[in-house]
Amino acid sequence: MRTIDWDEDRAAVRLIDQTRLPAEYEVVYCERVDELIAAIKELKVRGAPALGVAGALGVVLACKSASKGEIERAVMKLKEARPTAVNLFYGIDRAYRAAKRGKTPEEMEELALAEANRLIEEDIAVNRKIGDYGSVLLEDGDVVLTHCNAGRLACVEWGTALGVIRAAILQGKHIEVIACETRPLNQGSRLTTWELMQDKIPVTLITDSMSAVVMRGGMVNKVIVGADRVVKEGVINKIGTYMHAVLAKEHGIPFYVAAPTSSFDLEHGYEDIEIEERSPEELVYCGDTQIAPADVRVYNPAFDFTPFELIEALITEKGVFHTPIKLI
Amino acid sequence: MRTIDWDEDRAAVRLIDQTRLPAEYEVVYCERVDELIAAIKELKVRGAPALGVAGALGVVLACKSASKGEIERAVMKLKEARPTAVNLFYGIDRAYRAAKRGKTPEEMEELALAEANRLIEEDIAVNRKIGDYGSVLLEDGDVVLTHCNAGRLACVEWGTALGVIRAAILQGKHIEVIACETRPLNQGSRLTTWELMQDKIPVTLITDSMSAVVMRGGMVNKVIVGADRVVKEGVINKIGTYMHAVLAKEHGIPFYVAAPTSSFDLEHGYEDIEIEERSPEELVYCGDTQIAPADVRVYNPAFDFTPFELIEALITEKGVFHTPIKLI
Repeated sequence: MRTIDWDEDRAAVRLIDQTRLPAEYEVVYCERVDELIAAIKELKVRGAPALGVAGALGVVLACKSASKGEIERAVMKLKEARPTAVNLFYGIDRAYRAAKRGKTPEEMEELALAEANRLIEEDIAVNRKIGDYGSVLLEDGDVVLTHCNAGRLACVEWGTALGVIRAAILQGKHIEVIACETRPLNQGSRLTTWELMQDKIPVTLITDSMSAVVMRGGMVNKVIVGADRVVKEGVINKIGTYMHAVLAKEHGIPFYVAAPTSSFDLEHGYEDIEIEERSPEELVYCGDTQIAPADVRVYNPAFDFTPFELIEALITEKGVFHTPIKLI
Repeated sequence: MRTIDWDEDRAAVRLIDQTRLPAEYEVVYCERVDELIAAIKELKVRGAPALGVAGALGVVLACKSASKGEIERAVMKLKEARPTAVNLFYGIDRAYRAAKRGKTPEEMEELALAEANRLIEEDIAVNRKIGDYGSVLLEDGDVVLTHCNAGRLACVEWGTALGVIRAAILQGKHIEVIACETRPLNQGSRLTTWELMQDKIPVTLITDSMSAVVMRGGMVNKVIVGADRVVKEGVINKIGTYMHAVLAKEHGIPFYVAAPTSSFDLEHGYEDIEIEERSPEELVYCGDTQIAPADVRVYNPAFDFTPFELIEALITEKGVFHTPIKLI
């Protein structure tokens, strides 16, 4: 099943609830835009490309409102669901621009849906292209370290970083993966391991703090991660990415980023971007288990910035940009 | 209360159950050596210096056996409780050497207890000395990053790395701490934050993967950690230590290790040392919450090795060894 899609019968957004994996596989339906906004905030759907699709499908739901003014307000609210991944805004903008060509809310909904469906098909095609281009960088026998989840669960299907690995495996190369658990929300241990095991791709789980020792020990020879936003001087991605990039450089291991050009925001530098700070609760509790004093002070940025100097190549659907990366 | 001590009334080892903190503060009593071995394995008591005391007190419990043969077997079993921290063996050896001067099990128990009590008093004195020497390295206004728990909960009281911070604060310096949560068992979030908050020392909790961004962002200007074993070429300490050391060097931040000379094992190189690999469960579950597929392959070393080249100074009760560190 696709990570996120439009359900014709229910006229709703259908998505895999990623907060329940791997213990439970549950599909949820959002019939109203506020339900989808809540799902985005709670990370039931996450990952830059999937957020692009969520944004576009959110506009479809917004068009169920009675008036253009209400639709506009719903779209604005949707844009505030999460601040860092540019794809959310990209998907919203594309679908809303299409919708505004309609005269009635019904027409607007139809036009937004057509655009959202195009975005979905594009995401799949773009992922495949990223895989094709990126797979050239992987050799038979490689062990690839990845952080967070830049797999099919972060997209519609296939994936960006994990799409590169899937493409290399399709070419007959033997590739293994080391997945960092990705604190504090464990997208690596919950999602990356799960989707790779579903595909029978060999994967070993480690804590984020072990990447340096697996690099030094020769247990890994490439790193591939995704990106939430590509800016002028580098990439913004899940917290921990910068650390892995520094460690990879120190140990002579190539560090790759795989991302669609829809994640590009080359008009901005990293200092212009709002890095989402999430709730202290994410470090104080793990499920129902308390793992820190309830009133402890917490610093919990969801993303960090990695400069191009630390990135060997940026893999996109338009080709591979090798170091020294200069996009503008 | 001391982290670990002898309870005269109950003729038992009394310890704070560190697996229950910070949600619950519970004191447990081990009257038999196998109870203490279980407590060590389950990390109810942990931290190199505290394990030294546990080892010595374990010999006292072993001496409750009926014969010298049984005592010997119990001591051997105690030595196998955990493989990496040298202090456990050090504590056992000291108490058992003392015990063997006794003729009857009763005499042996008495001699072992006297030696264990000396070890307890020494640990406190040694911690204070480490604090005195190390505090010179800290300046008013410093923000110190630490990993795992090298505090009073890792010792009898006071602490090694955190003892240095406590000593600097006693001198009137304003020091703040950034505690890394220390996956997978969260000794940083569960224990370090808890004991610092008890002492009203300002502390901020981060995930291990955030240390690089707090270093780059100028939010921290020193790193101090403890050590489970100091070998010829460097230190063995909690997994993640090596990563922080590489990152500190990259960001021009001094990286200090505080450890008593009882952690020294200079006859061995790091390749001689067995690095404990712990259960995959530690990464698959957090309390009752499943955070990874039950059958995922896991790599879970409890410690890593950091070479002296990455360490600015080694703080001991005998003084500070500055870089280039040469102990032999």
